[in-house]
Amino acid sequence: MKVPKSVASLIEAFESLPGIGPKTAARLTYYLLHAPDTLAQQLADSARDLKAKTKICHICQNITETDPCEICDDPQRDRSIICIVEDPLDVWAIEKSGSFGGLYHVLHGVIAPLDNIGPEELRINELLPRLKGPTLAKSDSSNAKSGVEKGRTLEVKELILATNPSMEGEATAMYIQRLTKPLGIKTTRIARGIPIGAELEYADEVTLRRAIEGRKDY
Amino acid sequence: MKVPKSVASLIEAFESLPGIGPKTAARLTYYLLHAPDTLAQQLADSARDLKAKTKICHICQNITETDPCEICDDPQRDRSIICIVEDPLDVWAIEKSGSFGGLYHVLHGVIAPLDNIGPEELRINELLPRLKGPTLAKSDSSNAKSGVEKGRTLEVKELILATNPSMEGEATAMYIQRLTKPLGIKTTRIARGIPIGAELEYADEVTLRRAIEGRKDY
Repeated sequence: MKVPKSVASLIEAFESLPGIGPKTAARLTYYLLHAPDTLAQQLADSARDLKAKTKICHICQNITETDPCEICDDPQRDRSIICIVEDPLDVWAIEKSGSFGGLYHVLHGVIAPLDNIGPEELRINELLPRLKGPTLAKSDSSNAKSGVEKGRTLEVKELILATNPSMEGEATAMYIQRLTKPLGIKTTRIARGIPIGAELEYADEVTLRRAIEGRKDY
Repeated sequence: MKVPKSVASLIEAFESLPGIGPKTAARLTYYLLHAPDTLAQQLADSARDLKAKTKICHICQNITETDPCEICDDPQRDRSIICIVEDPLDVWAIEKSGSFGGLYHVLHGVIAPLDNIGPEELRINELLPRLKGPTLAKSDSSNAKSGVEKGRTLEVKELILATNPSMEGEATAMYIQRLTKPLGIKTTRIARGIPIGAELEYADEVTLRRAIEGRKDY
């Protein structure tokens, strides 16, 4: 099949992305040929910058261009609550919903024994220092109490376990809950139930059971 | 919403592509962050090269890196038959099927009066010289006859009208058929009927009518 090299190369690149088959890849490529030059240029520039300019925030482990990231560095955010998510994409989704004003911690995966991914492969080790804090480590309880007011890392009062409601996500949430229990920090799990706009009759049994178990006063 | 600039820019670029919404754009971008560096690099390089390295073949008007393009320049291709298509993407689709060994002519659109696109906006003017050829232009019939044997452009014996079976595609096919009729070249239209794998009961009425009208001896 005779296709110009640069066209074939872009089709191949698109095809390597998840959910994009050969036909969609070709359609996108030929669309770019007709589209204004600026679009192909923006795609090229931002794909090049994506890896070069981003790094991992040393506090929350999210993708960022500055370290600490804009969220960790924002004095407006509520430092007393940390939302634990699987992936940077989950931070994007929650930020987009505008429903959370606290900090995040990105695990970069879930515990998945079948894929040989244990807790040590995740960014769980980076979570604990954020909860314990430097003064608590001294195990001096009077100092620790004042530290709660002063030190950033000591302010945490709630952990939201926002891993996906999958087998692996539930297992990971449970693991972190057990690990952090001795610290005496309140731990919550995101609500699982019927999504807004869905219909009860199409919901699966486990979701329905969770929705009834998790019912609230009305 | 706080997302690193390079991430936001790539999400925006993906979102500008047809059929990609904000969620898919974010998913693709965050996938690239986890994928090997080479993939983002290939995407960046090929998107940059796409416009810089490609041009239009002066013969068939297809997208190419060399002029004339690889297909027009290939001595193995049957020069007696030209397949007329709307877009470069159609050439890609037909080449992929491996069902055609002749040459192409890309119109870069269809006649669409509602969108103010007339025949002069298409590459129809570039088609006629390929059919008439240089010796025929002399209007010397004895020379022209020998020219049929020698000149490349005089070899054309069949035109396949392969515009889409849409209103505009049919109108464009009809226009070209009328325009080329005086040249006495055989003109055919791609078969329209039930696609392979589809079921009769789901086919629309026009397709069914075409399928019955176009029935063949069995």
